Amino acid sequence: MRDVMAVILGGGRGTRLYPLTKYRSKPAVPLAGTHRLIDIPISNCLNSDITRIFVLTQFNSASLNRHVSLAYHFDAFRREGFVNILAAEQTDENMQWFQGTADAMRQTLRHYRRFRFKHYLVLSGDHIYRMDYRKLIRAHEESDADVSVAALPVHRDKVPAFGVLSLDDKGWINEFVEKPSDPEVISKLEVGPEFFESQGKDPYEGYCVANMGIYVFDRDVLEEMLLGSSELDFGKEVFPRAVAENRRVHAHLFEGYWEDIGTIKAFYDANLDFVEIVPKFSFYDEYDPIYTHARFLPPSKITRVTADKVTFAQGCIVDDSYLRRSIIGIRSRVGRGSTIIDSVIMGADEYETPEVKANLAPGVPEIGIGHDCHIEGAILDKNARIGHGVRIVAGNGPEQQGDGWMLRDGIVVIEKDAVIPDGTQLIFR
Amino acid sequence: MRDVMAVILGGGRGTRLYPLTKYRSKPAVPLAGTHRLIDIPISNCLNSDITRIFVLTQFNSASLNRHVSLAYHFDAFRREGFVNILAAEQTDENMQWFQGTADAMRQTLRHYRRFRFKHYLVLSGDHIYRMDYRKLIRAHEESDADVSVAALPVHRDKVPAFGVLSLDDKGWINEFVEKPSDPEVISKLEVGPEFFESQGKDPYEGYCVANMGIYVFDRDVLEEMLLGSSELDFGKEVFPRAVAENRRVHAHLFEGYWEDIGTIKAFYDANLDFVEIVPKFSFYDEYDPIYTHARFLPPSKITRVTADKVTFAQGCIVDDSYLRRSIIGIRSRVGRGSTIIDSVIMGADEYETPEVKANLAPGVPEIGIGHDCHIEGAILDKNARIGHGVRIVAGNGPEQQGDGWMLRDGIVVIEKDAVIPDGTQLIFR
Amino acid sequence: MRDVMAVILGGGRGTRLYPLTKYRSKPAVPLAGTHRLIDIPISNCLNSDITRIFVLTQFNSASLNRHVSLAYHFDAFRREGFVNILAAEQTDENMQWFQGTADAMRQTLRHYRRFRFKHYLVLSGDHIYRMDYRKLIRAHEESDADVSVAALPVHRDKVPAFGVLSLDDKGWINEFVEKPSDPEVISKLEVGPEFFESQGKDPYEGYCVANMGIYVFDRDVLEEMLLGSSELDFGKEVFPRAVAENRRVHAHLFEGYWEDIGTIKAFYDANLDFVEIVPKFSFYDEYDPIYTHARFLPPSKITRVTADKVTFAQGCIVDDSYLRRSIIGIRSRVGRGSTIIDSVIMGADEYETPEVKANLAPGVPEIGIGHDCHIEGAILDKNARIGHGVRIVAGNGPEQQGDGWMLRDGIVVIEKDAVIPDGTQLIFR
Amino acid sequence: MRDVMAVILGGGRGTRLYPLTKYRSKPAVPLAGTHRLIDIPISNCLNSDITRIFVLTQFNSASLNRHVSLAYHFDAFRREGFVNILAAEQTDENMQWFQGTADAMRQTLRHYRRFRFKHYLVLSGDHIYRMDYRKLIRAHEESDADVSVAALPVHRDKVPAFGVLSLDDKGWINEFVEKPSDPEVISKLEVGPEFFESQGKDPYEGYCVANMGIYVFDRDVLEEMLLGSSELDFGKEVFPRAVAENRRVHAHLFEGYWEDIGTIKAFYDANLDFVEIVPKFSFYDEYDPIYTHARFLPPSKITRVTADKVTFAQGCIVDDSYLRRSIIGIRSRVGRGSTIIDSVIMGADEYETPEVKANLAPGVPEIGIGHDCHIEGAILDKNARIGHGVRIVAGNGPEQQGDGWMLRDGIVVIEKDAVIPDGTQLIFR
Repeated sequence: MRDVMAVILGGGRGTRLYPLTKYRSKPAVPLAGTHRLIDIPISNCLNSDITRIFVLTQFNSASLNRHVSLAYHFDAFRREGFVNILAAEQTDENMQWFQGTADAMRQTLRHYRRFRFKHYLVLSGDHIYRMDYRKLIRAHEESDADVSVAALPVHRDKVPAFGVLSLDDKGWINEFVEKPSDPEVISKLEVGPEFFESQGKDPYEGYCVANMGIYVFDRDVLEEMLLGSSELDFGKEVFPRAVAENRRVHAHLFEGYWEDIGTIKAFYDANLDFVEIVPKFSFYDEYDPIYTHARFLPPSKITRVTADKVTFAQGCIVDDSYLRRSIIGIRSRVGRGSTIIDSVIMGADEYETPEVKANLAPGVPEIGIGHDCHIEGAILDKNARIGHGVRIVAGNGPEQQGDGWMLRDGIVVIEKDAVIPDGTQLIFR
Repeated sequence: MRDVMAVILGGGRGTRLYPLTKYRSKPAVPLAGTHRLIDIPISNCLNSDITRIFVLTQFNSASLNRHVSLAYHFDAFRREGFVNILAAEQTDENMQWFQGTADAMRQTLRHYRRFRFKHYLVLSGDHIYRMDYRKLIRAHEESDADVSVAALPVHRDKVPAFGVLSLDDKGWINEFVEKPSDPEVISKLEVGPEFFESQGKDPYEGYCVANMGIYVFDRDVLEEMLLGSSELDFGKEVFPRAVAENRRVHAHLFEGYWEDIGTIKAFYDANLDFVEIVPKFSFYDEYDPIYTHARFLPPSKITRVTADKVTFAQGCIVDDSYLRRSIIGIRSRVGRGSTIIDSVIMGADEYETPEVKANLAPGVPEIGIGHDCHIEGAILDKNARIGHGVRIVAGNGPEQQGDGWMLRDGIVVIEKDAVIPDGTQLIFR
Repeated sequence: MRDVMAVILGGGRGTRLYPLTKYRSKPAVPLAGTHRLIDIPISNCLNSDITRIFVLTQFNSASLNRHVSLAYHFDAFRREGFVNILAAEQTDENMQWFQGTADAMRQTLRHYRRFRFKHYLVLSGDHIYRMDYRKLIRAHEESDADVSVAALPVHRDKVPAFGVLSLDDKGWINEFVEKPSDPEVISKLEVGPEFFESQGKDPYEGYCVANMGIYVFDRDVLEEMLLGSSELDFGKEVFPRAVAENRRVHAHLFEGYWEDIGTIKAFYDANLDFVEIVPKFSFYDEYDPIYTHARFLPPSKITRVTADKVTFAQGCIVDDSYLRRSIIGIRSRVGRGSTIIDSVIMGADEYETPEVKANLAPGVPEIGIGHDCHIEGAILDKNARIGHGVRIVAGNGPEQQGDGWMLRDGIVVIEKDAVIPDGTQLIFR
Repeated sequence: MRDVMAVILGGGRGTRLYPLTKYRSKPAVPLAGTHRLIDIPISNCLNSDITRIFVLTQFNSASLNRHVSLAYHFDAFRREGFVNILAAEQTDENMQWFQGTADAMRQTLRHYRRFRFKHYLVLSGDHIYRMDYRKLIRAHEESDADVSVAALPVHRDKVPAFGVLSLDDKGWINEFVEKPSDPEVISKLEVGPEFFESQGKDPYEGYCVANMGIYVFDRDVLEEMLLGSSELDFGKEVFPRAVAENRRVHAHLFEGYWEDIGTIKAFYDANLDFVEIVPKFSFYDEYDPIYTHARFLPPSKITRVTADKVTFAQGCIVDDSYLRRSIIGIRSRVGRGSTIIDSVIMGADEYETPEVKANLAPGVPEIGIGHDCHIEGAILDKNARIGHGVRIVAGNGPEQQGDGWMLRDGIVVIEKDAVIPDGTQLIFR
């Protein structure tokens, strides 16, 4: 698709995902024990034959740049193919940081404009879904819209969490309502079953359609809108104005799994769904894979283990343990006698060498999970050091935090590089 | 090491490894569920900073070429780095196939001679070991030898299976005896503990030293020896003649694991050793890894499984099974109620799509292992289709074969792409 | 184009291009001072979004393999993208060399058949043209043909050199005549201006249409034809039989430059045309480039030179010379006082280091062209060493040859690596 | 060299090189018609087997990131090899831009510290030289220094432009004087011929040694110095303090060409020296090349041209012109009847398509140089559009500027993307 320029909005500091975003930008948060959030929109682009991709971020941009440059290097025969991180930069004209997603696009416009293309595809870095964007772009072209947006059918009971689109019977958008809660308003936003049928879908009743944060803009329209304003936020200001200004804004229905990984709870639930035999989102598709940094790691070695609904990434060593409904991420080490239940173990960035292990300070455990531990309802971020006999059981306590951990949304999050000494008990049941 | 040109002798038809070599050359045989035999010498070269590597083969060369070109592409900054398969080719001067390993080197000499280097490093494609060749090459240079060969201490009881080197007390080789069996001859070949001590090793008693098939030749010496003869085999003719001609041939002692994967039994044993907690050969070394083709595969998904001494490669799906002391290779599928013991499952080259599965001929199972199977003492080559209720139990019966399988060295080998229908019973206990 | 498998027939020994094919296969012959013949069909494939490409050759296959593996490595996101050389190989079933292009395809069928695709695109390695194969394949699909072939309008005076297609008024082929010379036969083969007009072309009069050697076969059709016969040649046996058997064989008209580089004369003329301001075939197209191995070479350095219709590849050093209507290939060196006219200088594979130069045997010049030379009407193959005061002037003498050179088609060809001593006079005017 | 981490200081806004730095950071300034300044230190690193390279910049960082990610992608077998641009980023701890080179290193320390290494190699992005850093690092290790710095012998007459090192007779540095002008001070800084001789150099007389801005720091020393201060500039504050604090600071003599491209004049002179037959700095070295982004461009096409001391990069089209002592950069176009003397033509980032040319606004020339132009003593930045009949002749006028040009250091600089209409006369002689 030589006509398309993809721009992925990296978003802000990701406070709702804190502490996973303590040392990294939101798109760099690890997913499913092997991937990172940014791999989803990039892979969707690649599988849609879109190979010019910019990612905008200024918060902890270096680690994202590192991941992307290791994982996504294209051959020279794609001509203009690239995935480029655009961090904030100082120029002759501008000495400021990005002030929001729309400001980031405005400041970086000159990097897009040197290319030839017709449409901007504007994406987020924190959604889970599989989409062939070519369909959206073709629908955009065929409807002769200025702006198109992917739209998700959502039952009226759930719409207070979404931005909701008011459609006419051809799918043109005449209003955009952010997180409606008034039942009367919601009733007006309801889309009748006839509309869904006219789009070749099931005749949903009692449904609205929500903005998925996946936009196609005609190049001229977006550049004019950005340059003619000083709006800071893309989803909250630029897109609503396109509707308000009576531009031709069209909704393109999407059916399938789509999830906004906005909170610790949503992140945790999405990860644990991957272990199901038939998960809502599958990484298994040899023709349209979800890519990531391909590593040279050995198979996982499992000794005396009972595992039920567990995914093992590469390079794990698990000894004499019981594992249930958990993600075991790359290079994870689990000591004998341990139990892991309902947990997301992100794994490690590297193996500790024998010399490093020999020189650990007193009381600092090795990276991984020691022996005789019980981990339940937790997220262990990368390189966490869990000592022997540690018990972590999540529960619905109030949000709180300690040295290297946080209880949030009822889930215990062990921070990246955290040290949890032998015998620690974090029980919130 | 800009002074070194590595040449890996792919060997002949690999009859002792048949049927693993039915559709592939010996260096392309899969290892450990993820790798291929050729990955071992190539990785040793890369970890020794040797990046000019030719692999000679004419038997099923295309699949080896494919693996190597996918796995080992070097960046442009290495100048002359490459791994090139040299298949037999017709030229103005020669219209013949390779007649042996020495003939293969002779026929391909012009491809090496265009480079600048001082030493040939001649390797085999079917050994398992980890070696820093730089030490061997430095010892070669320091001793001012014409030829150096890596030498393994072997107890006299085991030497009838080896090529044995007769050494003086400085490590110079004065005789080479292929597979000696006469105890008197062996006694003469014994190397005293003083020699081992002089080399900084333990003072082994009752040991000889064996030829490991890892040679360093001065460039001029080897080219002269090849061009001045019509010998066909490298290890059996060229190297022995170097000794017989009183060239300066030196032995460089190696300590550590080294295994010749020459037979089905040796192949099987070497694979099953990888599942040990402390295996003889480890793929785990983040600084000197054993490389292979890096793939985009999801984590393995394990549901209701008890596993003991098992390695899982990427992309497996195992359901409700009992696994013990086995290798589970990439993309393996194991159906519920199955038991796998003491087996090497090589996995699959690709996932079958739903359409393919829907169109299988009657009686043809899906790729993988069906439900309620019992597999014990077996090697399942790639893409084998094992139906439901299949029982395979190896045993010490005479060599025999059936449709898609072979009993060899007491191990059942299911051939690549074989179809083993529902309910098949192959029990040789 | 995931439905297409491209197979490039490397052809035989290339005797009509000898001595350019003395040390290399025909597709590896250097072109335009920077490229090789094989770069043309591979680039056309890449620019047509076809990325599964096999090249069949057994004659001097190693150098072709080397060029292709250096130049055409695809990123991992193309899934099944590759350019693979298939050299002859021995297998369990077959121990023979390729006996012709059809036999080569038959012997290598198993390598294609493991992929999913619908059409074979069969190409030659020795034609110069720029074609978007997607148009041909779409026409093939729309006409529901079994076989389609690209067809070139050729004036009846020139058809004795071509394979000529007899068409009905829809473009279906009912006969194939190889090199017709009888005027009556040619008259019958003439295609009226109405046909050209019906295809949206100019109403050529007195034209036939010729087979360009660019075929699309339905997968099943080609596999059945190959497996059901023992034909050896593709263009002379398999394709004509498709016509003779009344399969649906369709012609797809092509307009534009197409040249078969079959002889020294054709090769020479095609090269010299590249220096024209508006050449028949242009390498200049940043969107659909002709690729080759990208090298790190410095700009060409030109001192006191007058040049008219000359192309300079990278890394040349030309001193105090007069150059006219010539190709100056990579790393060419031209000494002071020299004149080069109407010549193709292929350049050098590497620079000679000062040490190498210092150690040349007496009378052996450096690589390149010495001082005070006159080169006219010649092709200098790679790494030729032309001494000082050498005069080479081609002419219409009978074919003849000497030490390192050959007069063929009235052109002097200096062989690869040839040594032409100081003062040599090769004048055939 | 696994023990070394290279950090290239991208520097500030590059005001002395303005307007070449108007749209790019200093390390991204084009050099020699094909390269960029940053290619020099990166290539020196690669040729010294140093493959972990960070480049620090915040000013116009995106274009530098783009060049580096296109040009310097390493294969996966180098383990930790990379060239990473570190732009300013916001983190949990820091929301500020870099305040100087030392501050930039301090802010980015956490990106280096995750690696294992012993020495920092700190480099600049705006010097031209060829150095094997391994010698410097070995000398550093052998002398057991805390800090080592490459030192250039400079005649006392020229030292007022340099930072000068005061040495004892073993090369230890006891004082650092920035740009000394007092002859007495200079006399004290003179290093006697005995010292040069003791270092194996010629016995220079009347020479001092200057700081080349190439530093090796022990890891601990540099991290302690950065974290224990709030110094902003590396060369002016951190390094002098190392001397002032009596750390073990050692000078390592370098002989050869080294040039600081700090001004328009220095940049111009360095470029024009490349056209000499024996230039001070050569890009010609097939074993230690200066790398850059390898492009797929055709040979340069030269018709009716007389050229003397000219380098042609790839893809130029030059017609009926006279060129003398000039750099002709990639994709340059020169119209008939033009003369180019003593000029640096940087070329173009892409070819203009026929459609673009057809749609140029009235009075806007095509990219390149029109016909009947005279360009002398000028630098034409990338994509400049020089109309027909333009005359540019530089001279020693006062610094001044106009629309798209600037006279600086007596050289006319045409800005990137500038439009110079037909008939413009810029004559300052």
